[in-house]
Amino acid sequence: MTHTIVASVTRTVTIGFDQPFCVIGERINPTGRKKLAAEMVAGDFSTVEADALAQVAAGANLLDVNAGVTAVDPNQSEPPLLAMTIELVQSLVSVPLCIDSSVPAALEAGLEVCKGRPLVNSVTGEEDRLEAILPLIKKYDVPVVAISNDETGISEDPDVRFEVARKIVERAADYGIKREDIVVDPLVMPIGAMGTAGRQVFHLVRRLREDLKVNTTCGASNVSFGLPNRHGINAAFLPMAIASGMTSAIMNPCRPQEMEAVRAANVLMGTDANCADWIRHNRDTATATMVNGSGMPSASAAGSGARRRGGREARRGAG
Amino acid sequence: MTHTIVASVTRTVTIGFDQPFCVIGERINPTGRKKLAAEMVAGDFSTVEADALAQVAAGANLLDVNAGVTAVDPNQSEPPLLAMTIELVQSLVSVPLCIDSSVPAALEAGLEVCKGRPLVNSVTGEEDRLEAILPLIKKYDVPVVAISNDETGISEDPDVRFEVARKIVERAADYGIKREDIVVDPLVMPIGAMGTAGRQVFHLVRRLREDLKVNTTCGASNVSFGLPNRHGINAAFLPMAIASGMTSAIMNPCRPQEMEAVRAANVLMGTDANCADWIRHNRDTATATMVNGSGMPSASAAGSGARRRGGREARRGAG
Repeated sequence: MTHTIVASVTRTVTIGFDQPFCVIGERINPTGRKKLAAEMVAGDFSTVEADALAQVAAGANLLDVNAGVTAVDPNQSEPPLLAMTIELVQSLVSVPLCIDSSVPAALEAGLEVCKGRPLVNSVTGEEDRLEAILPLIKKYDVPVVAISNDETGISEDPDVRFEVARKIVERAADYGIKREDIVVDPLVMPIGAMGTAGRQVFHLVRRLREDLKVNTTCGASNVSFGLPNRHGINAAFLPMAIASGMTSAIMNPCRPQEMEAVRAANVLMGTDANCADWIRHNRDTATATMVNGSGMPSASAAGSGARRRGGREARRGAG
Repeated sequence: MTHTIVASVTRTVTIGFDQPFCVIGERINPTGRKKLAAEMVAGDFSTVEADALAQVAAGANLLDVNAGVTAVDPNQSEPPLLAMTIELVQSLVSVPLCIDSSVPAALEAGLEVCKGRPLVNSVTGEEDRLEAILPLIKKYDVPVVAISNDETGISEDPDVRFEVARKIVERAADYGIKREDIVVDPLVMPIGAMGTAGRQVFHLVRRLREDLKVNTTCGASNVSFGLPNRHGINAAFLPMAIASGMTSAIMNPCRPQEMEAVRAANVLMGTDANCADWIRHNRDTATATMVNGSGMPSASAAGSGARRRGGREARRGAG
């Protein structure tokens, strides 16, 4: 069983096929959020603080932290800004963090100040990225998100993306990094632009799990880009990806429809023991039809009481 | 490719791996609906009529018709009642029907009056059922739902349920019935009573598709029996089953949350061409961020405009 261990000082999160789906909160990221970027440049972290608290309250298991504000020289400006943001966030919340940057110096600055065992986001199959990031992963003994594209870009052929993932796992092994510390992002394309995008990802996630035996993640909301009612698409995509073997996603935990889908998928994958988390989150919709001491339907009650369409059991003798 | 053809006089529905998920409306069924049963016995079909129209309006592709009112001798009372109900329903709506009874004489009475090519619901792996039902299936050249239990009941071992399904397919072949005319119901157990119920079904559906190459169906809502917020569980279960290869379900199409999940799953499986059905049903939630002449995002626009978490593409040179 592949277990990716991520930790803060006080909390350990295990990503794995037998674990509840790991929700990585995506909100602390100025990319595409001009107002947040301007605030962070000006030293105002009030939105970062609010986003950290809100995402944990909504059920995030990890928080992604990105400080990629547009700058003339990110190599100079991003390392101290990312380090400062990480220190702030870990002073506010106890969940483990995911250090997110395309600037290796910023990743290292983040790794220097981050307590516990953060996840690093990310490395790709590009040679320069492999050579820049993997030594950091080894030095700090942390897990890393591996994005399945390389110098040739993002292949539309899922088999090519699989081979890029395999290359990253093999190169990591050369550095002494274990397979369980590689969390592969198979890359989710917008379904509105490419009708095969969903089936591709489901197929790829299954192969990554069964053949390469690695945990997986993705930027889940990308799949619905350009379509109306994106939350409806996302809320179906997540359970489908989870049924295919996906073990985490970088997503917005403050969206109730998506979080309900993840919690229901945990129930259905058998990773929400006794449906306790589901029942806790749905107490007010008490449509439970029968309970015993545990608040759960018993197997025998369900067998006799569940309405079976057609009533075959009840009318067995009729034929 | 396995195609199960079901038809009314004017409409053909194809159940298949490359087809939109087939929603079989479950409402015309007095089992567990005492008021409806009493109405039907009294010759009042107003609820049947309303349910027929409402389910088709909500998007049902087929309608299940069951007339199993509790009776002293169903062999006498059910055949004419089922035939009458079928004639009524097919006078109101144009979708194909699914004739649902545990009484072989009622199935035959229904088959006599039903136009087109209805689906028959159901046969099991029990010897007496096989011998009673399969000759009818052959005689009327119609497809049948095959429930994967036998004389020993419903096995908790999915491999046993698979073997029951295989036995039914083989026995049907002995009668000259083709594999594409068998739609297997792998039996969905309540997840609240058996934590492995979801994974079992997903695994079984995949085997039924890949190894036995048959279409599948299920009574979807059974999975959430006994839990609060059942619609939330059902709305995750359907996409997960669809991603695993399930091609139809007997369900309530009048539940918007479940139907939205099915429509989103069709988008994600690539069976909703150009997302046309999704867009039609979600026009009022026009959050689409960019459109071209077709109302769809273009591949190039999506590639450049979709927000990629971390902004790796935009800042590629930064590292």
